[in-house]
Amino acid sequence: MPHLFDDVRPEDLRHADSYKWTTHPAEVLPLWVADMDFPVAEEITDALHRRLTRSVGYPQLQGDPALLDLLAARQTARGHPDLPREGMWLLPGVVPGLYASVLGLTGPGEEVLTHTPIYPPFLSAIEDHGRRTRPVPLLQQESGWEIDWGALEDSVTPATRLLLFCSPHNPTGRVWTREELERLGEFALRHRLWVVSDELHADLVLDGEFVSLASLGADIAQRTVTLTGPCKTFNTAGLPIGAAMSANPALIARLQLATRGVMAHPGALSIEMWRAGLTHGERWLGEVLDYLKGNREFLAQELRHNLPEVRFTPPQATYLAWLDFRAFRWSDEAYEFLLREARVGLNNGPTFGPGYQGFLRLNFATSRAVLQEALARIVHAAS
Amino acid sequence: MPHLFDDVRPEDLRHADSYKWTTHPAEVLPLWVADMDFPVAEEITDALHRRLTRSVGYPQLQGDPALLDLLAARQTARGHPDLPREGMWLLPGVVPGLYASVLGLTGPGEEVLTHTPIYPPFLSAIEDHGRRTRPVPLLQQESGWEIDWGALEDSVTPATRLLLFCSPHNPTGRVWTREELERLGEFALRHRLWVVSDELHADLVLDGEFVSLASLGADIAQRTVTLTGPCKTFNTAGLPIGAAMSANPALIARLQLATRGVMAHPGALSIEMWRAGLTHGERWLGEVLDYLKGNREFLAQELRHNLPEVRFTPPQATYLAWLDFRAFRWSDEAYEFLLREARVGLNNGPTFGPGYQGFLRLNFATSRAVLQEALARIVHAAS
Repeated sequence: MPHLFDDVRPEDLRHADSYKWTTHPAEVLPLWVADMDFPVAEEITDALHRRLTRSVGYPQLQGDPALLDLLAARQTARGHPDLPREGMWLLPGVVPGLYASVLGLTGPGEEVLTHTPIYPPFLSAIEDHGRRTRPVPLLQQESGWEIDWGALEDSVTPATRLLLFCSPHNPTGRVWTREELERLGEFALRHRLWVVSDELHADLVLDGEFVSLASLGADIAQRTVTLTGPCKTFNTAGLPIGAAMSANPALIARLQLATRGVMAHPGALSIEMWRAGLTHGERWLGEVLDYLKGNREFLAQELRHNLPEVRFTPPQATYLAWLDFRAFRWSDEAYEFLLREARVGLNNGPTFGPGYQGFLRLNFATSRAVLQEALARIVHAAS
Repeated sequence: MPHLFDDVRPEDLRHADSYKWTTHPAEVLPLWVADMDFPVAEEITDALHRRLTRSVGYPQLQGDPALLDLLAARQTARGHPDLPREGMWLLPGVVPGLYASVLGLTGPGEEVLTHTPIYPPFLSAIEDHGRRTRPVPLLQQESGWEIDWGALEDSVTPATRLLLFCSPHNPTGRVWTREELERLGEFALRHRLWVVSDELHADLVLDGEFVSLASLGADIAQRTVTLTGPCKTFNTAGLPIGAAMSANPALIARLQLATRGVMAHPGALSIEMWRAGLTHGERWLGEVLDYLKGNREFLAQELRHNLPEVRFTPPQATYLAWLDFRAFRWSDEAYEFLLREARVGLNNGPTFGPGYQGFLRLNFATSRAVLQEALARIVHAAS
């Protein structure tokens, strides 16, 4: 049965204001930066159209109370302890929240642990203002990507202050199990580390159950800042907004103090969008998840049949596939090769941490037809 | 003849997402935070409605080229030297631009000159991250507010690095003359100071001609960062965006370096709004300026007839009136007195710098009826 999302067509997406669709020449299929080629939920655009009938003067600069109530309720439903209002902070985007976390919870020269491969702004957030990355590579097992607990222990030094954690994990799509999270929480408590848990993809779980780190107990909740936002869930990166939340308001205060005045307030339409998504977004999100599961199966099957040299574990969450092309002779320039020979634009492995030359991240949140064409081009170029 | 803006009614403005209209109890008339009670230009809301028919994925994160072209053309029309593209930076708001300027152009402990009274974020931008304010009070003359050139010279020390300048001036509404700006430029060059010229109110000139500081010559342009944004012109504070511009790209690079990652990208709808305003906003802006001039005359006349104790020079720009209530015995608590006794919410003088106890800022960008009622309440409470 054809699906609404099948109708997505490159010629409709190649607008001048789309970063994804204009960065490369028109003949390139862009499967890189993490937004979806699907239209935004009608429930959200309807709310935005209605919002535009009123003033767009200053919104609630101390944090929109209705949105904060919705977020607090969602975190409670996820098992968090009740969030004090001073433990909630609306952000003008999630990447600024990563930076604010590093600036607020560490000093220059201090060390931050993070599991690589990792969404590139994790690395720049650590390094741009003089902190040091201690990358802890995930283990590439037959069953998928796993935490290397020995390497994690060995990476701790007296200068280590923070674990910058991605859950679900971008780019591998791992959904961490309760057991893994408990072990990680125990590790953080034992070493007296702060933890930032970036849970931006928590609504895009395709298999299994998402567990929020700070829901595991009061001890770990006191040491954790949870970052979230609607941009992945509702495909609204162009309406930037996010939130930093902690059961420990002193941590939020440290983030705020370190970035006073520099962090913009989120816009009125971003606030309206998030409220509408949290209230009325479920139907659309269900359709998206179904479609993404179909694309994931299609991708896995195509690779298995036509490019078995690519090592790949289908993601348990996100619409991102982390592909290992190292079996190919051109893998040292895999990104450039596929851009040039296949006319497909992916994300280049080395930007996700040291040691990922030959890896590429593919965004499969597009129509089946675009995904099929992109894979056919890749198979053809690789053969 | 009744005007569209006469129809503005408090009951329609008192929405839960309006900061201005919900901060005080419902019986208070809020004439404080600087947005206008007028509806946004149809040309802009039409463009936003159209924009919502497309994806709101990532916009051009390096800076929307169409918007940058429009801004460059406007600055050229204002007499600026041609702006290199690396000398233009889109901001997620103008206040973050003030902070980025202070962080990028000064070090901790260094001194920043600014003419007081001044828009309060000037003072917090200087002090929140450890720089020092050297306030240079304007002179209150019979003819209005004037720069105190002697005090300006006397304020320079070896630690002085930056002049944080507001043009047109908030809260006094002064439009600086070409002669004043030339003298100020000469002063900055002679002392090798950087200058940030916040020109946010440049489109809201009611009398006289706006001159942009960096248009006065290549020398001063090389030492100046100009800040601008659409929020005052088009009444769109809820769609935050701004720009920092300089003929000297090295200055913009310093702002960017100091705030890497923390400054969010402006949203897609903020970009669309500014483009629409710059392209199609003139008709609406003309109506606004006419209405504001009428309100300014009305305010001046009411005060002259019914509250002659209030010292007041009608602003040459902005929709803000800087009122000196020091002749009243309750002037030490003028803000609280008028909030309590007149049920009118204004901005409190001391937040604009040391020495402004007894001053209040009044925002007259509302319907004539609301302004009339607020003034009647103030007159009654003061009598």
